[in-house]
Amino acid sequence: MKKVLFGLAFAVALPLFAQQKPAYLDATKPIEERVEDALKRLTIEEKVAMLHAQSKFSSPGVPRLGIPEFWMTDGPHGIRPEVLWDEWDQAGWTNDSCVAFPALTCLAATWNPDMSMLYGKSIGEEARYRNKTVLLGPGVNIYRTPLNGRNFEYMGEDPYLASRMVVPYVQGVQQNGVAACVKHYALNNQEINRHTTNVIVDDRALYEIYLPAFKAAVQEGKTWSIMGAYNLYKGQHACHNQYLLNDILKGEWGFDGVVVSDWGGTHDTDQAIMNGLDMEFGSWTDGLSNGHSNAYDNYYLAMPYLERIKSGKVGTKELDDKVRRILRLAFRTTMDANRPLGSILSPEHYEAARRIGEEGIVLLQNNGGVLPIDLNKAKKIAVIGENAVKMMTVGGGSSSLKVQRELSPLDGIRKRVGDKAEVVYARGYVGDATGEYNGVVTGQNLKDDRTPAELIAEAVKVAADADYVIFIGGLNKSNNQDCEDSDRESLGLPYAQDDVISALAKANKNLIVVNVSGNAVAMPWIAEVPSVLQAWFLGSEAGNSIAAVLMGDANPSGKLPFTFPARLEDVPAHSLGEYFGDRSKEVVDMKYNEGIFVGYRWADKQKKVKPLFPFGHGLSYTTFAYGKPAADKKVMSAADQISFTVTVKNTGDREGQEVVQLYISDKKSSLPRPVKELKGFKKVKLAPGEEKEVTFTIDKEALSFFDDAQHAWVAEPGKFEAVIAASAADIKGIVPFELK
Amino acid sequence: MKKVLFGLAFAVALPLFAQQKPAYLDATKPIEERVEDALKRLTIEEKVAMLHAQSKFSSPGVPRLGIPEFWMTDGPHGIRPEVLWDEWDQAGWTNDSCVAFPALTCLAATWNPDMSMLYGKSIGEEARYRNKTVLLGPGVNIYRTPLNGRNFEYMGEDPYLASRMVVPYVQGVQQNGVAACVKHYALNNQEINRHTTNVIVDDRALYEIYLPAFKAAVQEGKTWSIMGAYNLYKGQHACHNQYLLNDILKGEWGFDGVVVSDWGGTHDTDQAIMNGLDMEFGSWTDGLSNGHSNAYDNYYLAMPYLERIKSGKVGTKELDDKVRRILRLAFRTTMDANRPLGSILSPEHYEAARRIGEEGIVLLQNNGGVLPIDLNKAKKIAVIGENAVKMMTVGGGSSSLKVQRELSPLDGIRKRVGDKAEVVYARGYVGDATGEYNGVVTGQNLKDDRTPAELIAEAVKVAADADYVIFIGGLNKSNNQDCEDSDRESLGLPYAQDDVISALAKANKNLIVVNVSGNAVAMPWIAEVPSVLQAWFLGSEAGNSIAAVLMGDANPSGKLPFTFPARLEDVPAHSLGEYFGDRSKEVVDMKYNEGIFVGYRWADKQKKVKPLFPFGHGLSYTTFAYGKPAADKKVMSAADQISFTVTVKNTGDREGQEVVQLYISDKKSSLPRPVKELKGFKKVKLAPGEEKEVTFTIDKEALSFFDDAQHAWVAEPGKFEAVIAASAADIKGIVPFELK
Repeated sequence: MKKVLFGLAFAVALPLFAQQKPAYLDATKPIEERVEDALKRLTIEEKVAMLHAQSKFSSPGVPRLGIPEFWMTDGPHGIRPEVLWDEWDQAGWTNDSCVAFPALTCLAATWNPDMSMLYGKSIGEEARYRNKTVLLGPGVNIYRTPLNGRNFEYMGEDPYLASRMVVPYVQGVQQNGVAACVKHYALNNQEINRHTTNVIVDDRALYEIYLPAFKAAVQEGKTWSIMGAYNLYKGQHACHNQYLLNDILKGEWGFDGVVVSDWGGTHDTDQAIMNGLDMEFGSWTDGLSNGHSNAYDNYYLAMPYLERIKSGKVGTKELDDKVRRILRLAFRTTMDANRPLGSILSPEHYEAARRIGEEGIVLLQNNGGVLPIDLNKAKKIAVIGENAVKMMTVGGGSSSLKVQRELSPLDGIRKRVGDKAEVVYARGYVGDATGEYNGVVTGQNLKDDRTPAELIAEAVKVAADADYVIFIGGLNKSNNQDCEDSDRESLGLPYAQDDVISALAKANKNLIVVNVSGNAVAMPWIAEVPSVLQAWFLGSEAGNSIAAVLMGDANPSGKLPFTFPARLEDVPAHSLGEYFGDRSKEVVDMKYNEGIFVGYRWADKQKKVKPLFPFGHGLSYTTFAYGKPAADKKVMSAADQISFTVTVKNTGDREGQEVVQLYISDKKSSLPRPVKELKGFKKVKLAPGEEKEVTFTIDKEALSFFDDAQHAWVAEPGKFEAVIAASAADIKGIVPFELK
Repeated sequence: MKKVLFGLAFAVALPLFAQQKPAYLDATKPIEERVEDALKRLTIEEKVAMLHAQSKFSSPGVPRLGIPEFWMTDGPHGIRPEVLWDEWDQAGWTNDSCVAFPALTCLAATWNPDMSMLYGKSIGEEARYRNKTVLLGPGVNIYRTPLNGRNFEYMGEDPYLASRMVVPYVQGVQQNGVAACVKHYALNNQEINRHTTNVIVDDRALYEIYLPAFKAAVQEGKTWSIMGAYNLYKGQHACHNQYLLNDILKGEWGFDGVVVSDWGGTHDTDQAIMNGLDMEFGSWTDGLSNGHSNAYDNYYLAMPYLERIKSGKVGTKELDDKVRRILRLAFRTTMDANRPLGSILSPEHYEAARRIGEEGIVLLQNNGGVLPIDLNKAKKIAVIGENAVKMMTVGGGSSSLKVQRELSPLDGIRKRVGDKAEVVYARGYVGDATGEYNGVVTGQNLKDDRTPAELIAEAVKVAADADYVIFIGGLNKSNNQDCEDSDRESLGLPYAQDDVISALAKANKNLIVVNVSGNAVAMPWIAEVPSVLQAWFLGSEAGNSIAAVLMGDANPSGKLPFTFPARLEDVPAHSLGEYFGDRSKEVVDMKYNEGIFVGYRWADKQKKVKPLFPFGHGLSYTTFAYGKPAADKKVMSAADQISFTVTVKNTGDREGQEVVQLYISDKKSSLPRPVKELKGFKKVKLAPGEEKEVTFTIDKEALSFFDDAQHAWVAEPGKFEAVIAASAADIKGIVPFELK
């Protein structure tokens, strides 16, 4: 036997072992086919491994099959710096600084879905460039009490506003092949006792108030993941909750994405298996301590799950469902070859941060037109207050950032004023030591040992002969001051700022108060101060955004996304006595006695409760005149749409934007209903003298309530009113109509 | 004025700010167009930033434009574990263990380009899954002296063999969208004084011996990057060397990729700018020390370059050339959306490691057919020697790995033998403390305080009544024992292993010596020992590969990629007295007096120098008979090809592979030439009794030498011989032919 074999001495070796591409790697195949193909290749151990973390912020893919790891990142306002593998300490990298965008309360205050899309797109690009699979945000928990330390991360008190704003954010993020992770699902409306609070809420409030923004994120935004909350509902933690996750999210809403636990939010293997949790993060992860050789093996969805399967105690149906969802996440993100590359620290991202900040700042009061500051007249501007110099991108908990740069309000004002006037500064008050979270000090060191009286005396002296006095105070991100894991202790401003403001008001009539916070605060001095801005936590471009509004380069157009109550007792969570819950028990039952009457729904109902500033409120440096609104029909059927039209005219002398609001009022109903509910809004830009016609088109959904007896949305025939308004308390016109 | 504006209350915000894709992000555009488009968008600061590291192993892309960072990884045998941002300590991740593949000497010993392709493909997949841009390997420095501590990372002494083996490795890696980085270019042939040695070598040796593998990697393998060496050539460090980089690599060879410095191999800004370096790594990077706020700003190609540009001292022509190359690298790797996803720790990778190991093990001697071990007859097998239990994937310098698993030779033998025989073990000798590199202890803790005499006595006792004795020793990866940054001190085995072997040989006639090393060692006991295997550093599957060969599951088919000299004096680098160089100077001149006569070229020339084992040597458990070779013509022209054919027959009783070698001998030349030079090889698999015809086709390139006077490759007309051989010393037939 003799075979002929040719060997060319110079031949180049050809690619060997060419294999047909398996379906799961074939991008021409539908995702569901790829999911099934990958699933069938996995061992049970590989499947279980995918269900839980391997480090602080990552979980394994399938290394042997090339399915990438999953990397999560906080948070909603910027991409968190890298931490050590299993400790909260920063890893000391130098490529992980970010652009900080304004906090989500500010975004909600823009009432501009275009800004939300811009925000999601921009932060999604930063996440993508940093190779993150999942961005842990946005948060859409409803603003139930102004004491909630984490309100600044959310989008206000109204389910419709939050819904309209969350959808473009999710879409913008996910355009980048990065999953949004909408949080904290659900009923996580305070920080105090957050791991032990069992919320008791009626189905109407659940469906009408607390769930709509999540539903919109799922059904319209198509979010690829959802984060479970820390609290309990019906006695089960929200991260493994039959009602919230299986029945509603995956059942009623058809969610096909991944449910991610909040970090440390998992408490029970059997519930985690059965009640809809897909990925577990953050259960014991400090330096692999607790006596475990690999703490991650001891996660609820790790060895304990594997043992239950191997012993036959549970089957693999739930396992396969979870893994399918996780695989789907991979195909949508890291395994999508067409996703863009992202970018960080770009001029476009700073520009986005600045624009959103400018559009979100709310002009609460402007008596006598003190604002905008006229730099042709001002010789001396006094800036007072610690928040004028305090970094606000650090602290506050998991949303704390490491920014490439942050312009403080004082520096922003100085930069804008240039040599046109003298800018002088006094501290006015001294806040808490800098923020600490998970044992890591995140803030600036701003030590000052002077007494309040000394500080006030200095401030008054500096302010007395200024042409303008700008007090920049509010909350900060220290514990009990807009910070994760703690709630505020009162509605009032901390650090005796009220005294500083009153003293300044006496010293100078041209006083402007800039309140930096993510929450409503009491303003006992409101009658003494001509001009007040609500300025939020504005991120990297804080100083530029604030200066632009103060000097009139930007005309304020933000509107409040939540009610500023005059007193804490005007908030039903407090007046009805259930905010603290029954703390005698390990699980703290927390009854939401106010039901659907949250925010302006409560203020409208309690006619004698006049808020400090109502929901939807926000002034401009120009003025707007509304025409008489009209409808395109008087009677609509359940299958119809109905349109309402109103003209809005800029009656002042500068360009401005107005947020025209549509509320619907159900005049008679079988169940109690709010006086009115937001069902449309439109931000219109108008040149001086310009008039535009704004049209809102709604259908029966806008007329519906959730009937808990029927467990269904119901639009009852009868009389309704379309209320056109500039805020919940500033009604511009009413159009009656009827549903047949 | 009145405009009509429609606002649908439920409208979903549409993607905003849709921009036309810039050319650099448009994958349908040619790479060169994308490079130019990106280049014109960059600031000078961004360009300079791309030229140097930002951490131990990464350099920046262009964050604002979405051009990704560049992540480098050691090394040629497996993907190095993650280290801290700016320290050599491991980062403590748990997702960064790897499959260790056999060292490159073993790969070269397979003489099988298919194995090289498999190797490159597999390790490239591991690099890709780990998100590495550049794999810092393979190494193709020529084996000039057996003392070179880093020979184990290279591919032997012959430029043709190394060329044929490096090309598929590069192609296999780069199929994954990961760049190979062929190193260390050039003339880095020892570790001692590696930063200060100035190599003085004639152009013939440079072009004929030291450069061909690099040239093949560039021109055939199309490698996307090259690493500069530590040493000097013509008084310039190789990392910024006019002759090697500008004239030869980028000039003569047309290399369009990136020249990466070895870590700490850059020494001069002006040379780095002008002499072809593109990316600088590893200059001062320990915890940002040395009093620099950011040590990376002080890199030679960082601020010092920027200052020269800003002051007008240098222009931007060189800068743009460097950045073009780096951009090209990005488009070929991280910005190629079609690159596969890679994988790690797969059964396929372990299988590849095992196969390459089995094919690379060389049966040096097998007197009396002691091997393979017959488990039907053996009752007791004694295994002796520290290397039977020592992890060889750690230590040795930058190629040290963190493996998922590594099977030791002893465990591999025990696993294979099972209950068919008793396996007993004695240590025999104790090596150095475990390896340390860059201050990090990387090895096992194998303490043993017994004296050599005690250890030998125990070994002899264990061996005396065994049916087989397998001594597993050799070098290890401690300092001066196959380890980066040091050379060996002698050719002999360390730790008095010769004494152990001689004692064992006296105690038991069925002695097998398994030499684990990446270098030739002296074997003064060779006449006393019937069977010797050269087993290399085999990686994760070491135990399986060795056991398979010992037990005959695999028939050895490796051939030596370098000469085993009998004595160090038989190596011209030593006998001609220039290995140590003149150490009285800061720069140590090192004359390569032997010129082109390296390895078998020297042994052939010095007829009385008989190697211990010649280049190309390797036995099999079967036997092969060669027929009489023939040529397809007697006279060829310079434009012709000529083919030589020989039949090879398996004359034994088991399947085996033979590496048929073609050497060319120039019978008369105007310049001195080696007696013969390898110009073809072919590994053929033959069943018992099977015969195959092997054909080699060459052209004038195989007949050429480098004429340094003409600076050109010249094939001089005249008489040649095609030498068909089984090793450099085992000639099977000669075919004369003539070049017209």
